[in-house]
Amino acid sequence: MTGLLTDLYELTMAAGYFEAGKASQKATFELSIRRLPKQRNFIIAAGLAQCVEYLLNLRFSVEEIDYLRGLPQFARVSSGFFDYLRDFRFTGDLFAVPEGTPLFAGEPMLTVRAPLIQAQIPEPALLSAITFQSLIATKAARMVSAGGGRDVLEFGTRRAHTPEAGVLGGRAAYIGGCIGTSNALTGLRYGVPVFGTAAHSWVLSFPSELESFRQLQKLLGPQTVQLIDTYDTLQGARRAAELGPPLWGVRLDSGDVIALARQVRTILDNAGFPQAKIMASGDLDEYRIRDIVAAGAPIDVFGVGTELATSGDAPSMSTVYKLVEVDICGIKRFIAKFSQNKESIPGSKQLFRLPDRDVLARSAECFPAAEALLRPVILGGQLVDSLPDAHAARARALKSMAALPPQLLCLDVVEPRPLEYSKELLTLIERTSKNRT
Amino acid sequence: MTGLLTDLYELTMAAGYFEAGKASQKATFELSIRRLPKQRNFIIAAGLAQCVEYLLNLRFSVEEIDYLRGLPQFARVSSGFFDYLRDFRFTGDLFAVPEGTPLFAGEPMLTVRAPLIQAQIPEPALLSAITFQSLIATKAARMVSAGGGRDVLEFGTRRAHTPEAGVLGGRAAYIGGCIGTSNALTGLRYGVPVFGTAAHSWVLSFPSELESFRQLQKLLGPQTVQLIDTYDTLQGARRAAELGPPLWGVRLDSGDVIALARQVRTILDNAGFPQAKIMASGDLDEYRIRDIVAAGAPIDVFGVGTELATSGDAPSMSTVYKLVEVDICGIKRFIAKFSQNKESIPGSKQLFRLPDRDVLARSAECFPAAEALLRPVILGGQLVDSLPDAHAARARALKSMAALPPQLLCLDVVEPRPLEYSKELLTLIERTSKNRT
Repeated sequence: MTGLLTDLYELTMAAGYFEAGKASQKATFELSIRRLPKQRNFIIAAGLAQCVEYLLNLRFSVEEIDYLRGLPQFARVSSGFFDYLRDFRFTGDLFAVPEGTPLFAGEPMLTVRAPLIQAQIPEPALLSAITFQSLIATKAARMVSAGGGRDVLEFGTRRAHTPEAGVLGGRAAYIGGCIGTSNALTGLRYGVPVFGTAAHSWVLSFPSELESFRQLQKLLGPQTVQLIDTYDTLQGARRAAELGPPLWGVRLDSGDVIALARQVRTILDNAGFPQAKIMASGDLDEYRIRDIVAAGAPIDVFGVGTELATSGDAPSMSTVYKLVEVDICGIKRFIAKFSQNKESIPGSKQLFRLPDRDVLARSAECFPAAEALLRPVILGGQLVDSLPDAHAARARALKSMAALPPQLLCLDVVEPRPLEYSKELLTLIERTSKNRT
Repeated sequence: MTGLLTDLYELTMAAGYFEAGKASQKATFELSIRRLPKQRNFIIAAGLAQCVEYLLNLRFSVEEIDYLRGLPQFARVSSGFFDYLRDFRFTGDLFAVPEGTPLFAGEPMLTVRAPLIQAQIPEPALLSAITFQSLIATKAARMVSAGGGRDVLEFGTRRAHTPEAGVLGGRAAYIGGCIGTSNALTGLRYGVPVFGTAAHSWVLSFPSELESFRQLQKLLGPQTVQLIDTYDTLQGARRAAELGPPLWGVRLDSGDVIALARQVRTILDNAGFPQAKIMASGDLDEYRIRDIVAAGAPIDVFGVGTELATSGDAPSMSTVYKLVEVDICGIKRFIAKFSQNKESIPGSKQLFRLPDRDVLARSAECFPAAEALLRPVILGGQLVDSLPDAHAARARALKSMAALPPQLLCLDVVEPRPLEYSKELLTLIERTSKNRT
């Protein structure tokens, strides 16, 4: 991982910390959710694996260091700092909420405890990695919830913000509950199930629709999904039925899918293929899926692209990465920011999950009956244990969501889940607020 | 570039084309703008450089081929196809509108002419690369336009959809007219000017605000930008003024920036620093910038993150990649899709720009007085000429926008710029529509 994949000010601050003799001062930063995105009752944490990969591989190349040396912002920086960058390794600790965990406003997702410079530089990469995947996992969870048991498949790579975002979006959508993705690289890298058959260009590249259907069947056998809307959807359905098995089913990609699905179902049933499935795609989101399900349209699988791959109605989330504690010669100083509407809460913390509420506490506190969600992932620069994979994260998400009060799974915004602060944390906030400079 | 960075169906279709003996059939695909994003009068084309890099480096590794072999979708595919992938190179042609060009609904951005398989596989990567950067360049152009001559700086990497999207978003924002980015890697890779000084954590890591200001000044000299809202903005301004030069200026990041900017300006002026600048950041978009400028607030530079890095109000755009032509034994067959609301226009095209309108024509047509926007970039798998860099693209964008009718630069939606079809193209559409299967 290139060390320059960060904001310049992280590096100017790093240089400043170095020059001020603060390079080895231990600091604790917390990545937390300031506010939930609009129309969300929770988010599903995802992206931790990429944060870990980033921290463990963060390095500065000679070319990168030379580039910095040439910038006017580094004109006053001593060569000791560039030597420091050359030998840079992340030697600190990372505590994190496991991927697949539902989280709520005001809750921490990661804690980084490391020498100040090492904890400062990762800010943008950690925020971007975890916020993006959490947005996509959450959007997927909403679509799966709206689907009421029907399968949802992610195929939005072409709409993702760079092809790489498509790869990671496919991973996140799977964690959020999709059955898989269209992205082949997501399959290879993360073991996520991949799906895909043919596009309109396939149909159009043959002299006739029937010929294209025949060739697809020859290629895919029982996995054949005929795309039937290139010319006329009902005519396409009749042609697919005429050819008969092997046939997994058909895909509708345009028009009034509720009405068309009913007519196509009748065509397939009358031709003797009640087991042939119907997939719908084209401008779907969770609200449209809810409407289609409510209308009782006979659709078995939803394929979603744009809205899922970009978290279209909420493409960003107010996550923050804040300094909460510094150790100066072994003495902790607790840090909070008091800027208007942008306050932060001091001190290293733990987040406890109880059946009916969450409790934010100081890191050393115990709540015997509760699940402690911030767990050690990296200690002293070493991975503690191999991380759960995308399958395990998905299983955790599905299980955790099933355990939430059902109203939180609604598409509309409901009363937020209570988040309490422990007495010790309240005392610390009070104390830090009095000491502000 | 990994060949698997695509949708699985592109690869199943590739296998099917191969098996059907269509591997070397020449095809033409067109990437075009079906509709402009909401609230946009134009888009600024960006991302071509990444499309070219992708096409010229597209390869399949042994590991990737083995992965495909193991998928059920490839169970019926002969080994000849996997040999084909092993030797895969893009040998076709790419025609493209230069980066920095304003484009409108219905207009093509790229044309790919290559053997069918080679033109099919790149679909998702090309769509993603060019759509994302065009969205960001466009959003930047709107902010710069709203700023009425004030500088706009991009610093949204932490909000981008993956850190890599942050790097490319910084590039695109620069092409759209920003003065630079906070992303250090964007600076190294693309020569984009980089900016950045310090965050709240810098201020908080020192025992006092004054001490943090002093240390920043020592580090950055005349490039010092003091972040003054960590405790109290006006108090921060007074402290920055007390320290005096060297000082570029101060940054406001919270509160009522219009009122605060006036008060801070007075503090700086009264202290004898009328040349010290004021930068504003924090939840800005083009509408907020317009309001701040309209209010006459003395702000010199706007720093924008979230809304720019995600194109927040329009995080996706309806671009499509459609088969428009195939050659079968040297005979052209023109292709169009007639799905409801998703029609496509047949044949390889040229886009001509005239002062008051654009004309979409067949590729061999000539309009002597007009600028032909689709230009050869790759021919026979070889780059024709080195591409203009981000600076040249930005210069083109700024010059082209200045030449547009001024109402198109409004933030609100106005009457669209006329797009005419040439007579020859209309004839072809008519003819293709009659021949539909």
